[in-house]
Amino acid sequence: MKITQIKNIKIGEVNKVSGWIENIRDKKSMAFVVLRDNTGKLQITINKEETPELVDVVSSLTLHGVATFTGKVVASEFVKMGGMEMLPTAIVVESRAEALPIQDDAEFGLKLDYRWLPMRDERDQLMFKVQTTFQHSIREFLVKSEFVEIHSPKILGAPSESGSEVFEVKYFEGKAYLAQSPQFYKQMAMAGGLGKVFEFGPVFRAEKSFTSQHSTEFTGFDIEMSYISDPKEIKVFESKLLVKVLTDVKKKHGEDIKRVFGADVVVPKLPFPVMSLKEIYKEIRARYGFKFENEANMTKKQIQTAEGDLTKAAEILCGKLSIDKFGHEFLFATGYAKENRAFYHMRDNKEVPKGFDLIWKGVEINTGAIREHRYDVLVKQANERGLKKDVEFYLEFFKYGCPPHGGFGMGLDRFTALLLNIPTIKEAMFLVRTPSRLSP
Amino acid sequence: MKITQIKNIKIGEVNKVSGWIENIRDKKSMAFVVLRDNTGKLQITINKEETPELVDVVSSLTLHGVATFTGKVVASEFVKMGGMEMLPTAIVVESRAEALPIQDDAEFGLKLDYRWLPMRDERDQLMFKVQTTFQHSIREFLVKSEFVEIHSPKILGAPSESGSEVFEVKYFEGKAYLAQSPQFYKQMAMAGGLGKVFEFGPVFRAEKSFTSQHSTEFTGFDIEMSYISDPKEIKVFESKLLVKVLTDVKKKHGEDIKRVFGADVVVPKLPFPVMSLKEIYKEIRARYGFKFENEANMTKKQIQTAEGDLTKAAEILCGKLSIDKFGHEFLFATGYAKENRAFYHMRDNKEVPKGFDLIWKGVEINTGAIREHRYDVLVKQANERGLKKDVEFYLEFFKYGCPPHGGFGMGLDRFTALLLNIPTIKEAMFLVRTPSRLSP
Repeated sequence: MKITQIKNIKIGEVNKVSGWIENIRDKKSMAFVVLRDNTGKLQITINKEETPELVDVVSSLTLHGVATFTGKVVASEFVKMGGMEMLPTAIVVESRAEALPIQDDAEFGLKLDYRWLPMRDERDQLMFKVQTTFQHSIREFLVKSEFVEIHSPKILGAPSESGSEVFEVKYFEGKAYLAQSPQFYKQMAMAGGLGKVFEFGPVFRAEKSFTSQHSTEFTGFDIEMSYISDPKEIKVFESKLLVKVLTDVKKKHGEDIKRVFGADVVVPKLPFPVMSLKEIYKEIRARYGFKFENEANMTKKQIQTAEGDLTKAAEILCGKLSIDKFGHEFLFATGYAKENRAFYHMRDNKEVPKGFDLIWKGVEINTGAIREHRYDVLVKQANERGLKKDVEFYLEFFKYGCPPHGGFGMGLDRFTALLLNIPTIKEAMFLVRTPSRLSP
Repeated sequence: MKITQIKNIKIGEVNKVSGWIENIRDKKSMAFVVLRDNTGKLQITINKEETPELVDVVSSLTLHGVATFTGKVVASEFVKMGGMEMLPTAIVVESRAEALPIQDDAEFGLKLDYRWLPMRDERDQLMFKVQTTFQHSIREFLVKSEFVEIHSPKILGAPSESGSEVFEVKYFEGKAYLAQSPQFYKQMAMAGGLGKVFEFGPVFRAEKSFTSQHSTEFTGFDIEMSYISDPKEIKVFESKLLVKVLTDVKKKHGEDIKRVFGADVVVPKLPFPVMSLKEIYKEIRARYGFKFENEANMTKKQIQTAEGDLTKAAEILCGKLSIDKFGHEFLFATGYAKENRAFYHMRDNKEVPKGFDLIWKGVEINTGAIREHRYDVLVKQANERGLKKDVEFYLEFFKYGCPPHGGFGMGLDRFTALLLNIPTIKEAMFLVRTPSRLSP
């Protein structure tokens, strides 16, 4: 029985409860144990004179160990935890624990070394529950919208987008590579007529970055849809999805998130605001005096080029702009220069990629776009980047008929960190991988 | 608009429909196109005299290409496909196609080379829909049962169970390994107090096997639950899960599966039958005259040892036995010898592992067990296999308190193949990876 359930039952009943031993006070005639499970805490009181047969087992209990107690639950005005305590008649030691190697104030690296110990705290428990809720909410939305789930291969014969930042695998007598994204394969699914697909899965990036927002492995969520040709359709779809997800999270965990993380879950209004980079730069210059770092020494042409992308500083100001101008946490940014987008993004008749970035609270959370599905145009765009050889297998997908399509991808860990105001994605994951961390 | 929707609308309305060009007959005054999407087929009839502006675009249509047609839908007694045809007033060529490099009767390897082409057929379309349904059904059951979803790392600092059959990754200046299973990490989640967890994700096996049931990468589904100590609890849980999943699949796709794959989806009855290996061997000897391959030359001791595991031949007979004896497609087999089970399975007081295999239609679909969570016992069992060094990071999880727990894992591709009577898992996957196949 869970501790919350115990607390709702009639006083005087006999119950069995298992959990972690959070505290022990073993006195001469009495012993007090604080038992914790992932629903709450319960005081266990052992009267050694009344239950002498429990004396030995009580003295063998270890702090942070696990035990099962059977006994009557009674009201007690001395007890803080729900005004009740359990008087056990039987105790089973399930697991003994050594003294913990880290304390609450341990440095971050040590906490990662012993990841499962901080995981026991309410903060992490809630984080994983929230992740479960929003992933399920996403899938409910997609399955209802008749999406098909795929699992694309993570071991590839050729690097997925370019040779850099890809991990090499020893594959029997040869070589293989780890997938940096399911992009090419979800597009293969479009050429395969699957219509609308989604995937949740690991992505691998051999980036030697040590920032709080980088890890070499993370969980991606990707979708792709056929028979769309206007990026607006993706934006509308994504907006609706996010409204559903944030509504579900707020409903189920909103109060807990506020209490534990101090974060407000805001359900965004439809439609989400959209601005071109040109408009964004104009407004953040006017409102907040934005300038590029080295703007005094830049030519007009250089400034124009720089405005074809969002710098980190401009991205942060987008968070502010979106709130100030629209009262909205989200902002779709459009009009990126083609040089700053993947070669497979479709371009309009002004050579502007038909895509967007979505900024949430001043952080880019994903890129979406209509893809180029016309074989000859795609080959031309791959050639511009000197990619033709590397992506030959991918180009094949478009030779034998392929519907127009588009989609987006998102990192679940970054989404978690933003949702819960967690400062680094390293804390928003089950176990982080960095260039210098491969364990546990 | 989808073709099935078109077929349900009022004759005479103007609609827009996109799809693959499955057939073209381009005559002097008329042209006929069969258009297909993933819901059905529609005849498009172009009267060249009435719509001369379409003549050029019609002649540029390619077989297997993709196009969008806008026009009125009218009844026609000459047309087989639903007794209706579309008379287009506008045609847009979305994608042109070269002549297909493979035909329907192409050999299997070629079909895998061009995986996205056979994927367009009804068979594959249905398979992916069924996979989507059963995965969602599993997750619904788990989320309702308060499981937490995790994504454990796939890049590991040490081989996950033993050094063999593991892929090595070049990790910056060092080495890493690909996860063979999330086993150790879902157990870490137990030590981390997450209570009940599940994971869907890729698993990697560097086995140089070329059988129809092997691939080097597949999708695993794993669960683990705390505070259970009897494998019966896992069996009951898994049985209920499978009843829910097969009920959902039958309801949504049962008729289509029968028509396309010739397979009956049978919703199993509760409880599932359970037999020990000892009972199984006794019965298959008595009923079907089972003998080990080399039994005439085996000592009594050797036979007894052989009966501590299920041979492939015995496994197949289990499928028959389960139907003949219980009228049930499933059979839980228990009482494996400890030598044939992983070192981390808990053993009872007779040293028999507290676990089972589940046999479905004569094929083992998964192994479940209570795990050994007591540090000292686990170390002893790891030492028996000479594993201590390799699994040191894993043993750490049990040093600081860990609840009793157990769970199981299952391969989704094998489940798909059995569900749909597909002879090889290579056809039950999005893209298969074998020792000799890494593309596309």
